[in-house]
Amino acid sequence: MDSATLVKQLLDDGDEVYCLTVDYGQRHRREIGSAMELCRLWNLPHRIVDLSDVGAMLVNNSQTGNVDVPHGHYAEDTMKQTVVPNRNMILLSVAAAWAIDLKADRVAYGAHSGDHAIYPDCRAEFVTAMQRAIKLADWHQVDLYAPFQDMHKGEIASLGHELGVPFDMTWTCYEGGEEPCGECGACQERTEAMEFAAKC
Amino acid sequence: MDSATLVKQLLDDGDEVYCLTVDYGQRHRREIGSAMELCRLWNLPHRIVDLSDVGAMLVNNSQTGNVDVPHGHYAEDTMKQTVVPNRNMILLSVAAAWAIDLKADRVAYGAHSGDHAIYPDCRAEFVTAMQRAIKLADWHQVDLYAPFQDMHKGEIASLGHELGVPFDMTWTCYEGGEEPCGECGACQERTEAMEFAAKC
Repeated sequence: MDSATLVKQLLDDGDEVYCLTVDYGQRHRREIGSAMELCRLWNLPHRIVDLSDVGAMLVNNSQTGNVDVPHGHYAEDTMKQTVVPNRNMILLSVAAAWAIDLKADRVAYGAHSGDHAIYPDCRAEFVTAMQRAIKLADWHQVDLYAPFQDMHKGEIASLGHELGVPFDMTWTCYEGGEEPCGECGACQERTEAMEFAAKC
Repeated sequence: MDSATLVKQLLDDGDEVYCLTVDYGQRHRREIGSAMELCRLWNLPHRIVDLSDVGAMLVNNSQTGNVDVPHGHYAEDTMKQTVVPNRNMILLSVAAAWAIDLKADRVAYGAHSGDHAIYPDCRAEFVTAMQRAIKLADWHQVDLYAPFQDMHKGEIASLGHELGVPFDMTWTCYEGGEEPCGECGACQERTEAMEFAAKC
């Protein structure tokens, strides 16, 4: 939802967008197929990079390890089991490398405020630190663009509806099934976001 | 040379060391075998993580792309062709993820001052920015330890000799051959460092 809305906003702004999806061996790798379909719909260059060997190294979480996906509300403490350690730095570092190689201006990152309680690598301080590190990483300076930082997922859903994002093509569920489980924290957060957007 | 000296110093300090080598599709992947042999000698846990698909994405440099390895002195401007964009952030982000998963205290990083002119991601500012980002990436705080930051490679060679590092088992050359080419910037820097250490 977040990435799709961000891409659509960039396209509407007239940006040239290159899409990156990372296969880090996530349980919910079903999302990779959804990303492919959206990129095909919007006719965008799309690179899927295989980092599954990194996921194989990280065993103490539910998304790349042997831990079960916790069911319940996404704000509960058990949801910390879904945190793949340092995932966002890994994704951003690969995206920044590609951006430098392409001589692109910036990396777009869909982190939002609702993630903060559980995911340390969605906090504003982390984004600021990464912005600085990415700028210093090469003689060609790349900016880290995170426009959803102060929005919650309901507001992103609302913006996405406004921009005409086909949310039925996006994937959120943390389980690996063919259909969303409706019970994991990610499914619950998605439902709440859609309900918020419907009321706007 | 740098990593091997750093590992030996940590071992001598009584640290518990886990070694990480990244296969990013580097032309000089011969270094992976050298790392394996050293880890076997010192009886250390060693993980080789496959990121070769990232290298495949980065085509405008001599180490993962189609560009020839420039021969000549390592301080020359042509050496910039050897820079794999954002390589060190990628390596550090994976190392930090593993450190968090292991609940380790720190990631050790062998960047030294001689690299600065060519490699932006060896500069002190970059190390400081990464230190901050890594600390913020998880609730379990990991430190980035870079004790060679203000040393040049000659001083590392000298320290390594003092600590008894078997430098004949380390690999430096940027070419992909079975023997060091002796002509690339990395080989020349190694030779100069060894000459410096021999005079100490």
